[in-house]
Amino acid sequence: MIQILDIIGVFVFAISGVLAAINKKLDLFGVFIIAFVTALGGGTLRDVLIGRMPVGWMENLNYVYIIILGCIVAIVFRNYLNKLRVSLFLFDTIGLGVYTLIGIEKGLEYGLHPTVCITLGTITASFGGLIRDILCNEIPLLLRKGTIYATICIIGGILFFVLRFLGLEDSVNELITSLFIIIFRLMAVHFSWSLPVITIKS
Amino acid sequence: MIQILDIIGVFVFAISGVLAAINKKLDLFGVFIIAFVTALGGGTLRDVLIGRMPVGWMENLNYVYIIILGCIVAIVFRNYLNKLRVSLFLFDTIGLGVYTLIGIEKGLEYGLHPTVCITLGTITASFGGLIRDILCNEIPLLLRKGTIYATICIIGGILFFVLRFLGLEDSVNELITSLFIIIFRLMAVHFSWSLPVITIKS
Amino acid sequence: MIQILDIIGVFVFAISGVLAAINKKLDLFGVFIIAFVTALGGGTLRDVLIGRMPVGWMENLNYVYIIILGCIVAIVFRNYLNKLRVSLFLFDTIGLGVYTLIGIEKGLEYGLHPTVCITLGTITASFGGLIRDILCNEIPLLLRKGTIYATICIIGGILFFVLRFLGLEDSVNELITSLFIIIFRLMAVHFSWSLPVITIKS
Repeated sequence: MIQILDIIGVFVFAISGVLAAINKKLDLFGVFIIAFVTALGGGTLRDVLIGRMPVGWMENLNYVYIIILGCIVAIVFRNYLNKLRVSLFLFDTIGLGVYTLIGIEKGLEYGLHPTVCITLGTITASFGGLIRDILCNEIPLLLRKGTIYATICIIGGILFFVLRFLGLEDSVNELITSLFIIIFRLMAVHFSWSLPVITIKS
Repeated sequence: MIQILDIIGVFVFAISGVLAAINKKLDLFGVFIIAFVTALGGGTLRDVLIGRMPVGWMENLNYVYIIILGCIVAIVFRNYLNKLRVSLFLFDTIGLGVYTLIGIEKGLEYGLHPTVCITLGTITASFGGLIRDILCNEIPLLLRKGTIYATICIIGGILFFVLRFLGLEDSVNELITSLFIIIFRLMAVHFSWSLPVITIKS
Repeated sequence: MIQILDIIGVFVFAISGVLAAINKKLDLFGVFIIAFVTALGGGTLRDVLIGRMPVGWMENLNYVYIIILGCIVAIVFRNYLNKLRVSLFLFDTIGLGVYTLIGIEKGLEYGLHPTVCITLGTITASFGGLIRDILCNEIPLLLRKGTIYATICIIGGILFFVLRFLGLEDSVNELITSLFIIIFRLMAVHFSWSLPVITIKS
């Protein structure tokens, strides 16, 4: 189940990368690189920080092939993707929930502190987009005012460890927390929840 | 002693990150991330390059908690920080001296060549600001004309290895070199010392 | 032979970095950093991704000294480099061929899949320029429309593994593939071959 959602996540993140790259008028190679870092950049950074090398996608090339497939689909159907905006958003949201839990899991595997695990979950789920924005020469969307995104991963991560502390089994907990993140994100978009921007008196 | 200065360094670098982030109108999450990379980005990059994983802050969360504290303090007192400009500059300078030596120490621990150790000291002390500027979509201040900064780390590092070669004990040497870097930086700012910009005839 | 070409590659990539940095009006330290990442950024990223730490240049400082030499030469002769444009382009092209094979070799050494090896070759040969452009606050040239560059590394890498599969010895294969990449690149520039930019109907 997690595995299928994981694959859908990579696929959708790749498509969103393709759209960003087309928007920036990059060439075919650029489109592929942006799709790649959007989908796998967060997980790659996580692997490097914890010392899990060669990084994940080098040992499981299915991810790379799914990204190539995602690029082809996105390029062929680029003029129709607008109509799929709602489905894409839904899958992106599923990706957010699944990736956060995958990141947390990796942290637990390495025996790291809950705070670090939550950080790794957040990096896995949201830093691909940050690297994409750096490559596209923009201030990362993730850091600017907008509907909350990474913050939801953090809150979801905290929920995971509270439930774990209360004795909930990990597999059930992962399901519940993923769903919590997904629903939270849907509500955040629906109600336009955002974090405040701090201003300074001049 | 080093430990207290280290903590002050993280705290002050986090505050300077918060101010940069507010200036860029980032949201609360963005403010925290910029504070984090400004304070710990250099050390994290150093750890990755030498293969010290999980990277440092994952094994000593005090750094993360100090950054959170730095964010809170900086946000609450943001309208008064201008008046503290001099104290902030002083602590930033102390951070420069302390971080350089911490980086050199890590290099020695890993049995690396003096040139590499000096590079690691410079990265530890000054590359957090470089990553901050990349995230804020600016050409890193570190690379542009301005009062010398990273260059002082390099000169301090050379001094450290000259004194070491002359037989000075490491703990005394660290103290002397840190002080040298701090005083050098204060003088550089006072006298506006900067490196030349190379121009080309067109 | 490979070693001499490797040194020439680092030297030329450093010079091209210096020119980019001068163009951005960076100071002396900035010039050195940009020369460094242009020459060694791709290989460093490769080393980190496969877990080869301390990264390569830390164990063989000759690379660093060649970059320093490249900086000095480039700065002293900066007003004459335009006249050497053709020689520089030739060496850059040799670098492309040599670096791709060095990256592939490292991947084989670590027992990685051909697809990963080709990726590592491409990263080694072309991602230094990408990091340079990020530091200079530009959308990486590598990702934008222009004469094909990274794509040639990929095609060369595929050729290498086809020839390997057919039983060709690695040392001969490396020579042939390098030459193929070099000639391919020369032809690409001569005939202005580029990848298409995908556009979207609005």
